[in-house]
Amino acid sequence: MPALLGTSRLEAFSDGVLAIIITIMVLELRAPHDTTLAALRPLIPVFASYILSFVYIGIYWNNHHHMLHVTPRIEGGVLWANLHLLFWLSLVPFVTAWMGENHFAAAPSATYGVVLLMSGVAYLILQRRLIAIQGDDSLLARAVGRDLKGKASAILYLIAIPAAFVNQWISGALYVSVALMWLVPDRRIERVLAERGD
Amino acid sequence: MPALLGTSRLEAFSDGVLAIIITIMVLELRAPHDTTLAALRPLIPVFASYILSFVYIGIYWNNHHHMLHVTPRIEGGVLWANLHLLFWLSLVPFVTAWMGENHFAAAPSATYGVVLLMSGVAYLILQRRLIAIQGDDSLLARAVGRDLKGKASAILYLIAIPAAFVNQWISGALYVSVALMWLVPDRRIERVLAERGD
Amino acid sequence: MPALLGTSRLEAFSDGVLAIIITIMVLELRAPHDTTLAALRPLIPVFASYILSFVYIGIYWNNHHHMLHVTPRIEGGVLWANLHLLFWLSLVPFVTAWMGENHFAAAPSATYGVVLLMSGVAYLILQRRLIAIQGDDSLLARAVGRDLKGKASAILYLIAIPAAFVNQWISGALYVSVALMWLVPDRRIERVLAERGD
Amino acid sequence: MPALLGTSRLEAFSDGVLAIIITIMVLELRAPHDTTLAALRPLIPVFASYILSFVYIGIYWNNHHHMLHVTPRIEGGVLWANLHLLFWLSLVPFVTAWMGENHFAAAPSATYGVVLLMSGVAYLILQRRLIAIQGDDSLLARAVGRDLKGKASAILYLIAIPAAFVNQWISGALYVSVALMWLVPDRRIERVLAERGD
Repeated sequence: MPALLGTSRLEAFSDGVLAIIITIMVLELRAPHDTTLAALRPLIPVFASYILSFVYIGIYWNNHHHMLHVTPRIEGGVLWANLHLLFWLSLVPFVTAWMGENHFAAAPSATYGVVLLMSGVAYLILQRRLIAIQGDDSLLARAVGRDLKGKASAILYLIAIPAAFVNQWISGALYVSVALMWLVPDRRIERVLAERGD
Repeated sequence: MPALLGTSRLEAFSDGVLAIIITIMVLELRAPHDTTLAALRPLIPVFASYILSFVYIGIYWNNHHHMLHVTPRIEGGVLWANLHLLFWLSLVPFVTAWMGENHFAAAPSATYGVVLLMSGVAYLILQRRLIAIQGDDSLLARAVGRDLKGKASAILYLIAIPAAFVNQWISGALYVSVALMWLVPDRRIERVLAERGD
Repeated sequence: MPALLGTSRLEAFSDGVLAIIITIMVLELRAPHDTTLAALRPLIPVFASYILSFVYIGIYWNNHHHMLHVTPRIEGGVLWANLHLLFWLSLVPFVTAWMGENHFAAAPSATYGVVLLMSGVAYLILQRRLIAIQGDDSLLARAVGRDLKGKASAILYLIAIPAAFVNQWISGALYVSVALMWLVPDRRIERVLAERGD
Repeated sequence: MPALLGTSRLEAFSDGVLAIIITIMVLELRAPHDTTLAALRPLIPVFASYILSFVYIGIYWNNHHHMLHVTPRIEGGVLWANLHLLFWLSLVPFVTAWMGENHFAAAPSATYGVVLLMSGVAYLILQRRLIAIQGDDSLLARAVGRDLKGKASAILYLIAIPAAFVNQWISGALYVSVALMWLVPDRRIERVLAERGD
């Protein structure tokens, strides 16, 4: 059995990467040369996709925060499961720009879904790994439970990706729906903490 | 009642985002191709708007620091109130560039004010949320008091936004005035801490 | 003998730099103007070199994390040995872009190897320095042992650099091999920790 | 007397800003379109100015680290003295790019010196402020002493700035000399710590 590490540096590094991801996306919002308010109109889809991705990265940070909060110690493999998650999330600015600059065209919208799906899968792998270390009766295991929300998200992404080629507003609506579903911070963990009387 | 989280990771993530916001603004200061000192002259408005925004982000960091310093524990909703604040602040580099590159033209100057106003509102929401958790007799509640400074700032922004379309030097002067008003670190919190004998 | 410092701020600064390095590389993945999936094809080599460099920076972060985890205290010289490592790693985005955008051409591929080699050497210097402070019977010294992996990596880079001018797929294969060799987190440190019963 | 704050968040924010400054400078090293080693030649002055600025930011981080290490508590004014220092340092990437891309031409080289001078002055102000809080017999006060190194640096910058218009190699040599003078980590603080038996 490998020795265990604390979580503080994993959290610090993840915070750094997520802070950069969430902030560099705004660089795609390029200041127009024109100085009328009308010059902002072409930026609306770029802005809309920025908001969507900001919320998604916010959700990941939020849930990551809650998940690590109930994780006392980790081991080496977790570092890679976490880097795997950060890898997929690091592609979010790219697909956000491609989708936003092309008014939510089919292929960019589908690719956006692929990156969301892979990020979701990576999060799940990380979660499983953390539960495996802590055991099935751990706080985290009980908080996650059968993880219906995680599974539902994956299914919705899987519908949204091909749907983008039919009508991109379907996929767009699905991405927004999943975000809304998660916007509520992961009360499961807070509830379990409250029960424990923490 | 939801379980409570510590503030350290919220602070770390906010520090990361604010550090990036304050630093990427300087990327708008593009090195001129010419090598005379005169080549710096066209950069003066860009530089002026950079200084203004640097001071504003500094003020937010400073007050955020003081506010969280007297906040022992938070809950999930605070994470989103904080992300909401970071969202509006993340738009500062965009409006700074638009305003600076266009010599403080009317629409960009007004838009700058809108982002400042929304950031101020977001800060207020976060503050209210934190006070709601800690109670009306908490250190934070007493330090904030009736928050005259916060309310005055909002009113000045509301004046500055339409004023930009009359004469942008009025709005500019108002933005500078609000910044000067806040430049003094939030002594209210330090005073209350001193009274408590901390 | 110089006085000793804690490691927390060294770790925080390194985490910041590594988080930025790993994330700004993605800026090279520029959103195509075309909106077909075929528009992603020219990005494949850029994407491949991004993955390779992401894994390398991940490896460095991972091993740095493990190494500092068993380092209780440092002194001033270590700060510079660490900055020296960060300097070489900061060149990774540059060589990644040059190699990826030019389909792994000879000179860029060789230059990529030079930066990997110098980063490896810088890591070794840092490791030696840390062992010198802690002594030969320290946890770190025992975990590192004769550092066969470190030496093997250096030799493989030294082969890969000239090999790039013969056939760049040889150098590419060598870079991937070294990465795979290190992908396993540094169990040596975890093993020694486990023996100690930490 | 204002209440006192801890230094951890000041350090975290400064680490973030310095990490970003040191890393975004590398973005000026743009991957050439050509794939020969000769294509790297025009980048040599850009690279040289990158190394110089990397070392300078490293020196500031290093000394900042040592200075805050012996500073138990701060107050609100220090936050602004620190932001003032970060402001001048945030201009380093701009002057580095201007100087490097123009082969150390006169005006860019002089402007580089102005930014170094102002950063030095800002550091001095921060130092004075910290000593004022802690008293003249504090560890920091004794470590800094008469601060001959700080004063000598300022004088050398003041010579280098006009000298750039005579011959930019004089100013360049002076910038390198000051860097070398500081490259040795600030042993003064470590020595005083050692005497105290920390």
